[in-house]
Amino acid sequence: MPVGHNPFPAMPPIHGIKLGTANAGIKQTVRDDLLLIEIAEDASCAAVFTRNAFCAAPVLVARDHLKNRPRWLIVNSGNANAGTGLQGYEDAKATCREVAVETGGKAQQVLPFSTGVIGQPLRVDKIKAAIPAAYEALHEKHWDKAARAIMTTDTFPKGVSVKVNLGGEPVTINGITKGAGMIQPDMATMLAFLATDAKVNNTLLQECLLAAVKQSFNLITVDGDTSTNDSCVLLASGASNAPEITADSEFYPPFAEAVLSACKQLAELIVRDGEGATKLMRIVVKNALNKEEAARVGKTIAHSPLVKTAFFASDPNWGRILAAVGRAGVDNMVLENIEIYLGEVCIVRNGGVADDYTEAAGQEVMNREEIVVTVNLGRGQALQEVLTCDFSYDYVKINAEYRT
Amino acid sequence: MPVGHNPFPAMPPIHGIKLGTANAGIKQTVRDDLLLIEIAEDASCAAVFTRNAFCAAPVLVARDHLKNRPRWLIVNSGNANAGTGLQGYEDAKATCREVAVETGGKAQQVLPFSTGVIGQPLRVDKIKAAIPAAYEALHEKHWDKAARAIMTTDTFPKGVSVKVNLGGEPVTINGITKGAGMIQPDMATMLAFLATDAKVNNTLLQECLLAAVKQSFNLITVDGDTSTNDSCVLLASGASNAPEITADSEFYPPFAEAVLSACKQLAELIVRDGEGATKLMRIVVKNALNKEEAARVGKTIAHSPLVKTAFFASDPNWGRILAAVGRAGVDNMVLENIEIYLGEVCIVRNGGVADDYTEAAGQEVMNREEIVVTVNLGRGQALQEVLTCDFSYDYVKINAEYRT
Repeated sequence: MPVGHNPFPAMPPIHGIKLGTANAGIKQTVRDDLLLIEIAEDASCAAVFTRNAFCAAPVLVARDHLKNRPRWLIVNSGNANAGTGLQGYEDAKATCREVAVETGGKAQQVLPFSTGVIGQPLRVDKIKAAIPAAYEALHEKHWDKAARAIMTTDTFPKGVSVKVNLGGEPVTINGITKGAGMIQPDMATMLAFLATDAKVNNTLLQECLLAAVKQSFNLITVDGDTSTNDSCVLLASGASNAPEITADSEFYPPFAEAVLSACKQLAELIVRDGEGATKLMRIVVKNALNKEEAARVGKTIAHSPLVKTAFFASDPNWGRILAAVGRAGVDNMVLENIEIYLGEVCIVRNGGVADDYTEAAGQEVMNREEIVVTVNLGRGQALQEVLTCDFSYDYVKINAEYRT
Repeated sequence: MPVGHNPFPAMPPIHGIKLGTANAGIKQTVRDDLLLIEIAEDASCAAVFTRNAFCAAPVLVARDHLKNRPRWLIVNSGNANAGTGLQGYEDAKATCREVAVETGGKAQQVLPFSTGVIGQPLRVDKIKAAIPAAYEALHEKHWDKAARAIMTTDTFPKGVSVKVNLGGEPVTINGITKGAGMIQPDMATMLAFLATDAKVNNTLLQECLLAAVKQSFNLITVDGDTSTNDSCVLLASGASNAPEITADSEFYPPFAEAVLSACKQLAELIVRDGEGATKLMRIVVKNALNKEEAARVGKTIAHSPLVKTAFFASDPNWGRILAAVGRAGVDNMVLENIEIYLGEVCIVRNGGVADDYTEAAGQEVMNREEIVVTVNLGRGQALQEVLTCDFSYDYVKINAEYRT
């Protein structure tokens, strides 16, 4: 069960970006598991990929093809094509060739993406057989179907749409993602695809995406494990009537803000659907010397199994939070300056439990489904928020079940 | 239930080191929860403490008193005296004064240690009342009682005794520890006390202990959380007839080896009694460029909740191990050079599943209670072993239960 009610939003078309899905039968499901995206000729394309040293075969190919002004994205769910050796690399390239054959394009302009089980050969024959149907289905309106096609065992499809006004003209940013609902073990996890009708060149779009990912997807954690397949793509078709966005134009800051907002919303949806999650925690670390320090403290708290199990139990266990702050590797912290809040309730002050704290007040906050934990380091001005979920019996159950 | 059968060993006396226990009633238990250790006047004393920035009050006091040739250690279980602010610091010093009053010694020569619940005031009055009984009970033979007195909710007392022959004379190293059996949440965890009758000066003893801890306690992990109270002490009474050990003497290497052996055995006992543990995993990383790199890869595997839950399920899930190696932050690793073995079975070779691997062979290894995972990085000569346990429903249960 995910945290909160997460209905799929209305997603308007992005002119210049078409989406088509089909059922390739890669994982014997009855639903579509193949997504083809067509990108208009003049569009820009930015992408960031997993930092796992053993990235999957499609990541290697997509990273290489990114420089060729991509015209197509091809995504399959059900098989990650990771840990598949040289054959996996050949299979990813073969997938690109099949798209080129069907569309009359060039294989080097196709970016492949895969998510699903690790270590199984990719059935290129099945993908090949389904590409015509996906091509036939291409339409600007199919964001909902696309979000469903990239799901593995996510419990709900994840999409956002953000509008921003640039020089009196509306610009739309759409995004879909799939995440950490890895009920089938061995999933290689996160994919996110965003598109906008803004006009932005490749270099600036890449810079914009990098900054947004750093402040969104890179600040969430379910279990601290970085997947071999994580990829995030931002397309810009330039179809809107808004002026072109350049690095020093007045329109870049609001556009970048809107992209960040879309990424943050997508990232939060992933955490809400985290494996076995029953609670969403926003860890806000403030008054740090810099953002890196704040993020480091926030992530140490968010990764702690002791903290995460306490939240599962609705236990206002501030000792575990304090211990996590202490081992975050920040030099010269002064315990007496630390404050910790659960929601609006101050629980730690001057290195110990706050004088006015009551267990009843702490318990009331912990019973909520969404909890803000604020850590005041009392040594600077910087603030960073990290999102995570709790650690439940179901996390162990989901990940301990045999691969089917 | 701990992993394996772990009987308490025979522990001969260490001349010059006396141990006495008493029931101070700190945690309403019927068993002894206070340990007093008397150290002979000429003995050396080395100690290493937690690197958690918010170390507990007794750690602050012990670290300060260490320079004064300690004559007494006073240890209580049931209360960690951590997160207790200035009052906690005063309470730790008051405990030292009470020992000085009873023994006629000096408070600055007493090292205090506490383990148990975080954030509760220490009942110095109860400790004061029990010190005379512990003093009365002092005897060189009481290692067993001492090991029991420092337990919190460990499921068995943990002790080792190692003998080494130096210049034809026997030297003994005894050690006791308590660990990660934190069935009561909020425990501030590891304590280890070792003593030897070897003759070693303080400086060399400290160097010896630091090196041993780095290769033993610092290479185990149950859940990656560093406690606020971790402390390890090594006493050397000099009572044996063996020659004095100096830095360049032929006796230092075998002595250091024996200390390391004692520390490794104690560390392993902690993992065997890890919270909810059903399996012991030895992660051996070999052919790394250096030991640091090997330890980093080993710890990344050992910390991964995905790996640990797979082991709980006896699932030979090599994709998770490979993904953990890949995200360990080691530069320029070559996937094709990696080999992964479960026990004697090669499961990954050349970046993918080994040609001769069978699920039946992998499953046979995973069904064992103790499993060796060998990762061959294929890029150097260094080897490091990291010990950990699996991640079970009971881990969540133990840590999610309300504080009582």
